[in-house]
Amino acid sequence: MTTIMNKQILLVSRPEGCVSDSNFKIIQSSLPSVSDGEILVKVHYLSFDPTQRGWLNDVPSYVPPVQIGEVMRAGGVGEVVESGHPDYQVGDWVQGTFGWQEFALVTTDGVFPVAKVPAGVPVTQCLGVLGITGVTAYFGMTRIGKPIAGDVVLVSGAAGATGSVAGQIARLLGAKQVVGIAGGEAKCRWLIEEGGYDAAIDYRSENVAKRLRALCPEGVNVFFDNVGGQILDDALLNLAQGARVVLCGGISSGYGLELPPGPKNYMQLVIRRCRMEGFIVLDYINEFPMAVDQLKRWLDEGKLKSQEDIQQGLENAPRTLARLFEGKNIGKQLLQVASISA
Amino acid sequence: MTTIMNKQILLVSRPEGCVSDSNFKIIQSSLPSVSDGEILVKVHYLSFDPTQRGWLNDVPSYVPPVQIGEVMRAGGVGEVVESGHPDYQVGDWVQGTFGWQEFALVTTDGVFPVAKVPAGVPVTQCLGVLGITGVTAYFGMTRIGKPIAGDVVLVSGAAGATGSVAGQIARLLGAKQVVGIAGGEAKCRWLIEEGGYDAAIDYRSENVAKRLRALCPEGVNVFFDNVGGQILDDALLNLAQGARVVLCGGISSGYGLELPPGPKNYMQLVIRRCRMEGFIVLDYINEFPMAVDQLKRWLDEGKLKSQEDIQQGLENAPRTLARLFEGKNIGKQLLQVASISA
Repeated sequence: MTTIMNKQILLVSRPEGCVSDSNFKIIQSSLPSVSDGEILVKVHYLSFDPTQRGWLNDVPSYVPPVQIGEVMRAGGVGEVVESGHPDYQVGDWVQGTFGWQEFALVTTDGVFPVAKVPAGVPVTQCLGVLGITGVTAYFGMTRIGKPIAGDVVLVSGAAGATGSVAGQIARLLGAKQVVGIAGGEAKCRWLIEEGGYDAAIDYRSENVAKRLRALCPEGVNVFFDNVGGQILDDALLNLAQGARVVLCGGISSGYGLELPPGPKNYMQLVIRRCRMEGFIVLDYINEFPMAVDQLKRWLDEGKLKSQEDIQQGLENAPRTLARLFEGKNIGKQLLQVASISA
Repeated sequence: MTTIMNKQILLVSRPEGCVSDSNFKIIQSSLPSVSDGEILVKVHYLSFDPTQRGWLNDVPSYVPPVQIGEVMRAGGVGEVVESGHPDYQVGDWVQGTFGWQEFALVTTDGVFPVAKVPAGVPVTQCLGVLGITGVTAYFGMTRIGKPIAGDVVLVSGAAGATGSVAGQIARLLGAKQVVGIAGGEAKCRWLIEEGGYDAAIDYRSENVAKRLRALCPEGVNVFFDNVGGQILDDALLNLAQGARVVLCGGISSGYGLELPPGPKNYMQLVIRRCRMEGFIVLDYINEFPMAVDQLKRWLDEGKLKSQEDIQQGLENAPRTLARLFEGKNIGKQLLQVASISA
């Protein structure tokens, strides 16, 4: 067995506000050998999600924080290059929580084979539209938002990995109007031309509350919120009676330690008899295969579009995470790990 | 027919923040005669509710604002003294939106006969425990909060008209622990000794978040919130997984035009997979008789206690409304209208 050198990115300090390169360091080390039950995975693609920023704060949440000195936690997809487990063969494609590194030596808990996909479907989809962000859109919309035929559905962060799928699912469930909020002309154009949205609101150049009133004079029945902050407040002022607000994320908070003010219009939930509800997609883990099957079917039928933004090079991982908070990505943010050809 | 002089309190200016006498004026005028379909009601008791403060702002809500120059809107109970409607006889007791005045000349829309109550049950109960505040507690708890056997239930504004009933209903529905938050020693003593609460937190002298963690280490399953503000934020930090936050009111906001910051901990709804939901009790109006029957049964069986604070004299109406926001009342705030012996 040859000694394999592994490049890893460790957390060295906790960011206040935005992440920067200085919060991380790259190290290179030789991999220990593979023990029984373990597999060695060559990481091809890493997934970037706003929730990762939350893991960098030393506060309790639905998963423990990443510790100083640990490899930054991240989902990824890769190829088995050495196996100590009878169920995994060299050459198998797998996904799991591999972290910011070129090779991951892991037990097989939480590692899943990447389903054989039809020819031409990129392996990256298991991190995006067929991965956590896709199923997040699926369960958030079908179990919490529950749009019915004729509903008006609003999605914030609409051009993001989850939002871009959420809006399309709303339409597939029978919504009569799907409106997306995103930042910048390029994203808004994408929403209309590619993402299947009926209308787009550019929060950077438009008055969201005013445009919402104009676009949805009867109010919004389902608001799928990935953003929080002022956009949530604007949406709360334009709910239809009995509306559901799906709390999926709050990227506008920047995930710093100091929380920004909450939604001051929350009492609209009383006046309009509405509900605001959060969820964690991991609670639906047993139903993931069903959701992935459905999403795949919609993809195959051409009813659902997948959009990805793929950056290059492990050393760019911190900057790639920052892109999410700078609103640079359209669709799923991915990174192709350096020196590996997919 | 003799000319009856009527004392009325009109809104003359919109309060900013707290209401004061200067926002109102008392006038005296002779009543017009009773037309066909109308009834003249001698008002005995007026009901005071935080929501009335909201009606004084010139903003759209679930009912239109009270206009400058109009008699202040208020629920009340009184006796028919003249009738132009065949279904109502002189001497009948009725409740309705009679306003701050000695006599109300009204059509019979929204006027209900006061149910014949067993001897010894005061007529005022139809404004409190058997009135809007009682049924608000009933529907908020049974339809939105839905505590089940073994749940931990928290109520803010726990010694108020709605809160004092809400806590008792939670207990009757099988909650294993009912905790109330109120302001001041007298109210907290009342919660334990009379109100059937297991524990009381005095927000004026105690750290609510800390006491909550100590009292409910497993978290709160149902939070019935009448208050908002810091207390809502404290409660959000101590929810059990899948908890329900019932938004009933937000008296801490003072109902001014400028909204205070919203609940900054609202993303706990995501982490703990919780829902926060508002309701308007008028949506359940067709089910009021059923709810009142249930509440009456519990009263008769000694399982539910009614608590009232009765002030005197129509001219004290503005000050009586202010009492709610100063946290002076225990139980339902009422006013016995001057110069009428009940």
